[in-house]
Amino acid sequence: MNDNLGSSVKALVFDVFGTVVDWRGSVIRELDALFGGKGIAVDRAAFADDWRRGYPTAMHRVRTGDLPWTKIDALHRLILDEILEKYRISSLSEAEKEDLNRAWHRLAPWPDAVEGLGRLKRRFIIGTLSNGNVALLVNMARHAGLPWDVVLSAELAQHYKPDPEAYRMVPALLDLPAAAVMLVAAHPNDLAAAAREGLRTGFVPRPLEWGPAAKSHDVSEHRFDAVAADFNQLAARLGA
Amino acid sequence: MNDNLGSSVKALVFDVFGTVVDWRGSVIRELDALFGGKGIAVDRAAFADDWRRGYPTAMHRVRTGDLPWTKIDALHRLILDEILEKYRISSLSEAEKEDLNRAWHRLAPWPDAVEGLGRLKRRFIIGTLSNGNVALLVNMARHAGLPWDVVLSAELAQHYKPDPEAYRMVPALLDLPAAAVMLVAAHPNDLAAAAREGLRTGFVPRPLEWGPAAKSHDVSEHRFDAVAADFNQLAARLGA
Repeated sequence: MNDNLGSSVKALVFDVFGTVVDWRGSVIRELDALFGGKGIAVDRAAFADDWRRGYPTAMHRVRTGDLPWTKIDALHRLILDEILEKYRISSLSEAEKEDLNRAWHRLAPWPDAVEGLGRLKRRFIIGTLSNGNVALLVNMARHAGLPWDVVLSAELAQHYKPDPEAYRMVPALLDLPAAAVMLVAAHPNDLAAAAREGLRTGFVPRPLEWGPAAKSHDVSEHRFDAVAADFNQLAARLGA
Repeated sequence: MNDNLGSSVKALVFDVFGTVVDWRGSVIRELDALFGGKGIAVDRAAFADDWRRGYPTAMHRVRTGDLPWTKIDALHRLILDEILEKYRISSLSEAEKEDLNRAWHRLAPWPDAVEGLGRLKRRFIIGTLSNGNVALLVNMARHAGLPWDVVLSAELAQHYKPDPEAYRMVPALLDLPAAAVMLVAAHPNDLAAAAREGLRTGFVPRPLEWGPAAKSHDVSEHRFDAVAADFNQLAARLGA
């Protein structure tokens, strides 16, 4: 579609939760296994959604200084403890809670992700740019077979996206002009924040991120440098 | 050799220059091509050794605050400009000097390195812990086929090895106890500094690092958790 874009971009960094991996389906499966085995009868999809919905609030507490720098692993655990209380679940041992919290290290990729990343990697440096902490992203990549050249995390900037520092870190560490770096994400607000720091934007909608009944993002007010239905189509668009 | 070690260690991080890649042979080949083509008659091995020998001094200027934080790419260039003057070479264009400086992004791995790393990766998280900057390490990995799970660099700690901050960063980012992380290096002083921060140590001597005439490191005063002749032997020793 845009030959020039494929030539000027040297590195693609990916939002991870929702863009590369299906956090909702994966967490529901983990809850099915754990809660099913223990006879805990709650709506697992609602539980998964509540867990994820707690995350912007938790990051906001870090952003405003209410919490010191805190890894996503610890934020996930804070939220988990709250929703276990909300759902009146008290039968999990500490080891079970800790293992459940690590479900975020074991999220499954969307069906096109591994193949598409492999194809993009032939032409571009590929990496993460995630609010997930480094250990989480490394464990996930090993579990899911994600072939990253580099794992970049908000943890390295000590600023969560969409703080500008998280985006500025990428061209600085890769020693590239900002316009040679594209953020690929399913979330228009993440892409808009990247564009404000001079990065290119690749929008890959993931309409099933919040389940089959969820509404799509309204992107009528947004402009992206590339739009693709999945990572294979993105590779084709960028000439990879 | 030590079954317990292979079970307690979860991640191996590698010194890169000299341990994973043959900087000297690679730089000499680049000099042969460039200087040969331009009829520049200097001792290329001596030139390569001088380039590398300038590097501790340059890092020391950063450590003492004489220079602000400076990437290895920029330090390599500072030293290159000095030795070009020393060898009275004035016929290189700016583009040629810049390309020559990037020789450090194109270093060739020791013959066992790619296979050994692939084997170790099946059991352990594998990563770099190098004074090389992130961009250099990423470009090198893509060029040489080094299958890192994670690229960690002194640049992320803004402290060059052997400063303790560089070693402490690894268990912190990987969310592991220090004793679950092993530094693998060909250099006893690097390993000694890692051990002071609680990391395990794997010594892989690279007797050809400084060429066939160089003396080996005297390691009679050192203790390492593992010693192996190459990365394949290290994998066998660690049960990978």
